Amino acid sequence: MHIYIEDIGKYQGKDVIIKGWLFNKRSSGKIRFILVRDGTGIIQSVIAKGEVKDELFKIVDKITQESSVILTGTVRKDDRAPGGYEIIAKDIKVIQMAEDYPITPKEHSIEFLLPFRHLWLRSKKQNAIMRIRHEIIKACRDFLDNQGFINADTPILTPAAVEGTTTLFQVDYYDQNAYLSQSGQLYNEATAAALGKVYCFGPTFRAEKSKTRRHLTEFWMLEPEVAYIELDGIMDLAEDMTVYFVERILEKRKKELKILERDISKLEKIKKPFPRITYKQAVEIIRKKDKQLKYGDDFGAPHETILSDSFDNPILVHHYPAGIKAFYMKRDPNDESLSLSVDMIGPEGSGELIGGGQREDDYKTLLKRLKENNLPEKSYEWYLDLRKFGTCPHGGFGLGLERTIGWICGVKHVRETIPFPRMLDRVYP
Amino acid sequence: MHIYIEDIGKYQGKDVIIKGWLFNKRSSGKIRFILVRDGTGIIQSVIAKGEVKDELFKIVDKITQESSVILTGTVRKDDRAPGGYEIIAKDIKVIQMAEDYPITPKEHSIEFLLPFRHLWLRSKKQNAIMRIRHEIIKACRDFLDNQGFINADTPILTPAAVEGTTTLFQVDYYDQNAYLSQSGQLYNEATAAALGKVYCFGPTFRAEKSKTRRHLTEFWMLEPEVAYIELDGIMDLAEDMTVYFVERILEKRKKELKILERDISKLEKIKKPFPRITYKQAVEIIRKKDKQLKYGDDFGAPHETILSDSFDNPILVHHYPAGIKAFYMKRDPNDESLSLSVDMIGPEGSGELIGGGQREDDYKTLLKRLKENNLPEKSYEWYLDLRKFGTCPHGGFGLGLERTIGWICGVKHVRETIPFPRMLDRVYP
Repeated sequence: MHIYIEDIGKYQGKDVIIKGWLFNKRSSGKIRFILVRDGTGIIQSVIAKGEVKDELFKIVDKITQESSVILTGTVRKDDRAPGGYEIIAKDIKVIQMAEDYPITPKEHSIEFLLPFRHLWLRSKKQNAIMRIRHEIIKACRDFLDNQGFINADTPILTPAAVEGTTTLFQVDYYDQNAYLSQSGQLYNEATAAALGKVYCFGPTFRAEKSKTRRHLTEFWMLEPEVAYIELDGIMDLAEDMTVYFVERILEKRKKELKILERDISKLEKIKKPFPRITYKQAVEIIRKKDKQLKYGDDFGAPHETILSDSFDNPILVHHYPAGIKAFYMKRDPNDESLSLSVDMIGPEGSGELIGGGQREDDYKTLLKRLKENNLPEKSYEWYLDLRKFGTCPHGGFGLGLERTIGWICGVKHVRETIPFPRMLDRVYP
Repeated sequence: MHIYIEDIGKYQGKDVIIKGWLFNKRSSGKIRFILVRDGTGIIQSVIAKGEVKDELFKIVDKITQESSVILTGTVRKDDRAPGGYEIIAKDIKVIQMAEDYPITPKEHSIEFLLPFRHLWLRSKKQNAIMRIRHEIIKACRDFLDNQGFINADTPILTPAAVEGTTTLFQVDYYDQNAYLSQSGQLYNEATAAALGKVYCFGPTFRAEKSKTRRHLTEFWMLEPEVAYIELDGIMDLAEDMTVYFVERILEKRKKELKILERDISKLEKIKKPFPRITYKQAVEIIRKKDKQLKYGDDFGAPHETILSDSFDNPILVHHYPAGIKAFYMKRDPNDESLSLSVDMIGPEGSGELIGGGQREDDYKTLLKRLKENNLPEKSYEWYLDLRKFGTCPHGGFGLGLERTIGWICGVKHVRETIPFPRMLDRVYP
């Protein structure tokens, strides 16, 4: 019976078939140990000379790394075996003998590995990151779905820019130009007014010229948006969702975190309430260590790291100066120089994980903002309509999936947090 | 206490606050009925002169369609009210009075509605379609997640074409060209070899020149891919998933199906096993009604409709001639002219919902196919690697989300099945 390695605990003493690839092998006198991976786990199998037919023993000596194999044998509990079980081999069939697999068990440079991303994903560490990625996606979706949010996908091909045109990828769309979406937010505002509570979760694109460990040109963003919500409610939502997916990962993906050698005590400290500080307070904290930063400046990566080093939890920084936030941010009615915005700065230098806030909901004010930003009124006509026909306080945020995975996995560079990273100099494989 | 209309049954006799928009109103002597929608449902509220302060009664007379309102009142069970409950109003606050809402309760043409898609989504029917869309997405994800599939997102920006270049959107990617992905399949093959069972679920793009009721230029596709699977297993997976999401919709979205006036008896007939017929058998069925079709031709929409009219269930058509399928399809070892492919034709003329099959897993054969199709070997180097290093029988399929929603909702044109449809002549709003 074909089973997956992740389910092996259910088959103790039974004969099973594992279909996978040779991960590694070692020999010790008349015994051979092979490690077979099937994508869901790695299992050790023992082949003892004299106990199997000679032919099988010879095959084992020849099998190369990443050859595809079908292993038949009996499951045995063995505390010394990695994972607690091993398979006493009865038969091994080689489907295809791999030759010169480029990624050997030794260390390789990132420059060497990136062009082999399609194979590199088979490694233990990359497999663990992808499984955690899957679980974060699922946890966030479950969290929102359980609260009645509706997944309303927003378009990728858009006629206009959300936040200026300099970082947009242009597409030849028949006889006109279109741009790849940087955010589903504007469209979310329309679907939130139609459906109450919505989210989009898809790829977004930024043609940034910067090559940093926190930037991809194509990355996934989860963006919830709610009608009739104000800044405090948006912060509650960000906080609740974060606590939810951290707990889920600690519950379901301990094995993967261990493979990644993640210090899980840091994740176990993530508890409500998160510190909520104003931009002004954040500037004061940063300035204790970096006097260069002035009130009114946007935070750079080093500033975010100073902030995150000051707390165990993610930090909700709100009320940024309006000048460093997008045109659609609602201003604080008590101080027009401030926006009703919030960013969530992740722990351990993981950077800005969430950015959001309350949206400008007044027609005339929004029109003024468009003009101040030299944005074409015509392109935003539909967006303005949302303020003409039953406007209400509303808002939401965007969670950058890859940075979030980087934080949870303790992986410094976001390029390892997505199956096929796209960067300034990389669109292959 | 602010509650959502979908939860109103829990608050009988209680005072609640509904935050939403005026959907409709009518008057009858000294009584006014207003219908308020909040995205999760529509509730009727009764305002009787003499029982509320006069001012409130005057406000109600003035409120216009789609004005944003906050309604406070007591929940009362009333079998005559739509939905079984109504609210005895105590207070109504108008947040913003909407003027001249363009989509009145009368009928509008599709040409009129499409530019107002951002508002049209607020209508009862579009709301129901979007909720069913959400549920199908969730059901498919749950189905795969429950079986241990890993959601591994594939890239949108790709260097090469999966199935030729004529229907590709080109993107200016810094100093080179990139193309918007038409399918995540090739990448899925890499992640399946790394993770065992995977799926991607994202937007895909086809720059088709055709304007039909079944085509969008941007549409969502769910693509599972499995290592060590053969054609029969792929058909089982397609069948099981379809039955699963149909059951889920019947369980959770009866209310929405009713709004859409969907004949649910047709959905209740969807049961395993689905008919599995060869392409050759399908041709024979079609030729009984349309002699024009010849063996070797691909099926057009009318042919698919003839087929679907012959069965209650979706139909799995397998073993298409290799010539009308993509280069990566594995050939039938017993008849090289046939491919190990399968399409699922949906009921009631909903068209091809699923396309998939077993992939060519032999290095030399795949290389030959690339050459036959004049595809550049260099661009597919990584894809060829998958056959060099532990190849195995594998396959999967792609489910077109919008066509599937069209079928379930009984909506003829796919443009109503996605929040913001993108077509040959439409990239706004």
